Amino acid sequence: MADATQPLDGDPAARVLVAGASGFAGALAAQLVWRHPRLELVGVTARAEAGTRLDRLYPRYRVPLTLEELDLSDAEGFEAAIVAYPHGASAPVVAELRGLGVSVVDLSADFRLRDLPLYEKWYGGHGAPELLADAVYGLPERHRDAVRQAELVANPGCYPTATILALAPLADAGLIEDVVVDAKSGVSGAGRGGGDEMHFVALDENAKPYKAAGHRNEPEIAHELGRREGLTFVPHLLPLDQGELVSCYVRPSRALEQADVDGLYGEAYEDEPFVELVDEPPGVRDVRDTNLCRINVLVREDRLLCFAAIDNLWKGAAGQAVQNLNLMLGLAETEGLL
Amino acid sequence: MADATQPLDGDPAARVLVAGASGFAGALAAQLVWRHPRLELVGVTARAEAGTRLDRLYPRYRVPLTLEELDLSDAEGFEAAIVAYPHGASAPVVAELRGLGVSVVDLSADFRLRDLPLYEKWYGGHGAPELLADAVYGLPERHRDAVRQAELVANPGCYPTATILALAPLADAGLIEDVVVDAKSGVSGAGRGGGDEMHFVALDENAKPYKAAGHRNEPEIAHELGRREGLTFVPHLLPLDQGELVSCYVRPSRALEQADVDGLYGEAYEDEPFVELVDEPPGVRDVRDTNLCRINVLVREDRLLCFAAIDNLWKGAAGQAVQNLNLMLGLAETEGLL
Amino acid sequence: MADATQPLDGDPAARVLVAGASGFAGALAAQLVWRHPRLELVGVTARAEAGTRLDRLYPRYRVPLTLEELDLSDAEGFEAAIVAYPHGASAPVVAELRGLGVSVVDLSADFRLRDLPLYEKWYGGHGAPELLADAVYGLPERHRDAVRQAELVANPGCYPTATILALAPLADAGLIEDVVVDAKSGVSGAGRGGGDEMHFVALDENAKPYKAAGHRNEPEIAHELGRREGLTFVPHLLPLDQGELVSCYVRPSRALEQADVDGLYGEAYEDEPFVELVDEPPGVRDVRDTNLCRINVLVREDRLLCFAAIDNLWKGAAGQAVQNLNLMLGLAETEGLL
Amino acid sequence: MADATQPLDGDPAARVLVAGASGFAGALAAQLVWRHPRLELVGVTARAEAGTRLDRLYPRYRVPLTLEELDLSDAEGFEAAIVAYPHGASAPVVAELRGLGVSVVDLSADFRLRDLPLYEKWYGGHGAPELLADAVYGLPERHRDAVRQAELVANPGCYPTATILALAPLADAGLIEDVVVDAKSGVSGAGRGGGDEMHFVALDENAKPYKAAGHRNEPEIAHELGRREGLTFVPHLLPLDQGELVSCYVRPSRALEQADVDGLYGEAYEDEPFVELVDEPPGVRDVRDTNLCRINVLVREDRLLCFAAIDNLWKGAAGQAVQNLNLMLGLAETEGLL
Repeated sequence: MADATQPLDGDPAARVLVAGASGFAGALAAQLVWRHPRLELVGVTARAEAGTRLDRLYPRYRVPLTLEELDLSDAEGFEAAIVAYPHGASAPVVAELRGLGVSVVDLSADFRLRDLPLYEKWYGGHGAPELLADAVYGLPERHRDAVRQAELVANPGCYPTATILALAPLADAGLIEDVVVDAKSGVSGAGRGGGDEMHFVALDENAKPYKAAGHRNEPEIAHELGRREGLTFVPHLLPLDQGELVSCYVRPSRALEQADVDGLYGEAYEDEPFVELVDEPPGVRDVRDTNLCRINVLVREDRLLCFAAIDNLWKGAAGQAVQNLNLMLGLAETEGLL
Repeated sequence: MADATQPLDGDPAARVLVAGASGFAGALAAQLVWRHPRLELVGVTARAEAGTRLDRLYPRYRVPLTLEELDLSDAEGFEAAIVAYPHGASAPVVAELRGLGVSVVDLSADFRLRDLPLYEKWYGGHGAPELLADAVYGLPERHRDAVRQAELVANPGCYPTATILALAPLADAGLIEDVVVDAKSGVSGAGRGGGDEMHFVALDENAKPYKAAGHRNEPEIAHELGRREGLTFVPHLLPLDQGELVSCYVRPSRALEQADVDGLYGEAYEDEPFVELVDEPPGVRDVRDTNLCRINVLVREDRLLCFAAIDNLWKGAAGQAVQNLNLMLGLAETEGLL
Repeated sequence: MADATQPLDGDPAARVLVAGASGFAGALAAQLVWRHPRLELVGVTARAEAGTRLDRLYPRYRVPLTLEELDLSDAEGFEAAIVAYPHGASAPVVAELRGLGVSVVDLSADFRLRDLPLYEKWYGGHGAPELLADAVYGLPERHRDAVRQAELVANPGCYPTATILALAPLADAGLIEDVVVDAKSGVSGAGRGGGDEMHFVALDENAKPYKAAGHRNEPEIAHELGRREGLTFVPHLLPLDQGELVSCYVRPSRALEQADVDGLYGEAYEDEPFVELVDEPPGVRDVRDTNLCRINVLVREDRLLCFAAIDNLWKGAAGQAVQNLNLMLGLAETEGLL
Repeated sequence: MADATQPLDGDPAARVLVAGASGFAGALAAQLVWRHPRLELVGVTARAEAGTRLDRLYPRYRVPLTLEELDLSDAEGFEAAIVAYPHGASAPVVAELRGLGVSVVDLSADFRLRDLPLYEKWYGGHGAPELLADAVYGLPERHRDAVRQAELVANPGCYPTATILALAPLADAGLIEDVVVDAKSGVSGAGRGGGDEMHFVALDENAKPYKAAGHRNEPEIAHELGRREGLTFVPHLLPLDQGELVSCYVRPSRALEQADVDGLYGEAYEDEPFVELVDEPPGVRDVRDTNLCRINVLVREDRLLCFAAIDNLWKGAAGQAVQNLNLMLGLAETEGLL
């Protein structure tokens, strides 16, 4: 079988580098760029696996490029980059790319929190604090116009993406008194490392809370929802690969009817290409391998139940990165993502 | 291979019938009685599968008896029965057994709610309302003495078992202002039927809320915890076989320290053979094929997080039924369950 | 969210009906046509689920059409159809479609066997035997030119696709003395029905042979490989959704070196867009959601081991149907399948 | 909850040490000894996890002992040991135990092959070759009398256990011309280590052959079946925890009828407590958490199909170890294993 060539549709709108393409999210980002009719994938980088072809690590993604060590000394030939490095390791690379004038979507947490001390509390030292002010939080459903103008987009975490989309219409209307978020994630959300805890036998037929005392996605969620308190977030690990469900239990600040809530959500999301309001709680299988967020909201006596399901690697990471890149480059937002 | 004979240890304390042994919980109950050193399994019954050997339906349980249609016209030769019929179908059978003087543990919901109108609201007509007053709610950790005296025990549902054990020490101390219970169950909890919704392909790689508008286990939970309101319970289905996790988010009625809570739970459960307090959130795999309930409680700012994991077929059904039977018969509570 | 419109790239090359779109293969076929840049999906039909939107049954496929009962009385407006009816039910529908001049790819077994008595032995009566002579066996890697000319293509079964591709280079060279094929399939290969045997609990953590005395895909395999005997085929069911692996154990008719075999397979498949020769045994995960067949052949003393992995719903059904349709319509073979 | 005490039934027949109890097989061996009514578990050892309680690593096994480093300098107080060390590491420990007069069941491969050069070819240097002549191959169905007399038993590998039981009646009668063994194993068969290859995401929804060029269990199988050639064995890894299925395809040396084969197998296994002949191919779920080997044999034209299913951790490791220990100590063979 001959190697595939990239299925470009005319001249590319941009040449794109994917840095950190050996992890789950980075590899999918590489595939999505590869398949994209208007983007040219010019390179994929990784540290440990440099020299390996990406389609050997991830055969079903079918990207026939070889992973290389990142070397920006002679960087030219690309206008945009998706960076999928670990938290902390990302910032200096992003800074270098920005110094070369490259537009960046960063999948790490490094530019998600504007508040430096808050970042340092959860993640440690920051490698490029001077860029924090430039970064736009890349949740297009909330910050579409800013993303369009941005040259550095901080791609949200998967938990924040689902949780914020599930709750934003209520939060914006000041209707949340307090909220409990019980989040459930497939294993790919935890990344490729992990040792014994990620062994098949440890996770098969299991379901388990983790980081119950506090997860570092919380400040990200709290900031977007404008909350200082009254938010309890607990993630759980499930025996499946891709998929994430957040079950949000809201105590509203005033009594609400189902019609009120349907109106709020309908208005917020009616034109959104990737948010789908459904009339029963969504399962994660329903959104697997899509960039969709499916949301169901139910008024139940004195609580509102808001459920949102995404694919953590798509809308929770690589799919949203391409959605952001489309916006930054002036392309149709859904291009390459349907 | 010759058929096994039952491994009895001296004269049996009772001869036991398991009625409705073709379902998941009934079949396990049959196995637990079969293996029990002090109980003799005298028969297993089922409607649809009568004539089939139980070890053909459930080979790994290794019970070499043939399922028969229930016929109580010449019932004699057993002093106790575990009934695992569907809700509604159970009550008349239990009534007949009680009329014959047989001690009964009933796995259905038919005798769990003392309040007849409440029962009828959730389950429909009741076949033996005259027995409601005699039935004891068979959660030994709460009603051990009553179970010891009982001749009819209503075995709790799996969700109520985990939820009540997770919350009872707080509820008894009047410390729950309100509580959200996000429950997660393996598929065996939904029983053997179910059609397309239980197809492997529908559930594999999925996770989904169901009955979000109200689940019929709620009144059972609310009654035991002494609550009229302030309880939100939502179950979810997970892609695994046996196992159940409840994540309870409590807003306490007054500020609590971790030490306070540890004290309460330690006192409540220190002598319990099947409740284990652990210092991190439990996974369902940790209790698979055991009669344990593992509980972890964490004080987190203004919330208490109470997690409980059980095996829905054991502590949530058949294991607890044998625990109750042990108590009713004056045997050691853990006999046959370690 | 507004309904998607079909992402067509200019005028469509054909308007396509997918009949029987409520099953796993039919639904994927509908999605692949929907996404195809050169095909217009004009309708989806189903018997039991008529009136339901397809994206309600299969949300992640995102096809916003409503299933209708098949009614060919006023059939016009489409030039091609993919038929995904059960074996036996397909032939009369295909006959009607052919009578209307519609080009058909049929996913059932109804036109795979030219030998009517053989068909009747395995499948029962045939509804349109007069069309058998016109049908082309749609394995493009073997019959590409005939498919290009065909108006009725019998899409191969999933097991035959993997097995024939794994063995054809040896069979064509007359090098197979006898062969054992141990086939392993994910559950979607067995279709949507199935009752208790397809219940999640029956299949989870299980692996089991079935139809060991003879499976009806055997004559299809034997015919293509030109064998009357010396072929033993046994399928097994695995606890996964999509994916199929065949492990073929060949006793060759003469001694062979690895280089000989590599040469044969390289020559056979070097230009094939969907056959990938790899240097270690493939896993089914490597081809999930792709139209690829990955093949590895290993000479080991007196045996040849030939392993092939496909996605049973793609290369084993719907993906191959679109590949065939591309050929019949004169489009690029890989269009819509990368 | 108070720690459990061991449920001993009178004076123990022996005090037992389990060395290497942190791995999957060793941990189960510890549990089986702990639960055994006639054996006293006096200690559990491990290297890396010394200091950790076993019920923390494996909560559901409920063994409340703390793992210690193995120290035989003051070894006394036990008459028997089960050793579950890695291949190569086991021999010196076994030698030391034997020097102290302790009866040993060794789960590693170190004493399975009498032929030292053959051992060295597959496993490397041997730490106690002087003991090879004393070791008995612990497959009780084949060597029961020798095991009864033995003081050192080499517990068979999981693949050899299933394969030899599946084929021995034919091999002993000289009826195998050649045989292909397609073996399928759950992940626990590969042990606790493994790194990236054992990551949940790498194995979920996957099925893959491995060691296709030759697996080190082959000489063990070949020796017991008395074969020098005509045996092809290929293992596959499946996405499940415990369970192993071997599908054996035999070309017989003469034509056989089903009745002949049924007679042979019936005679071989009629009195075996842990071998069950069944009339359809067994699934691995049917034997999970049991010490059973379920076998089905089918004559199909010119082939015999022999299927055997075991739980790799039970009959394939720890269960069989206890079965051997029962025999060595003069106990009932099934004690503690029903």
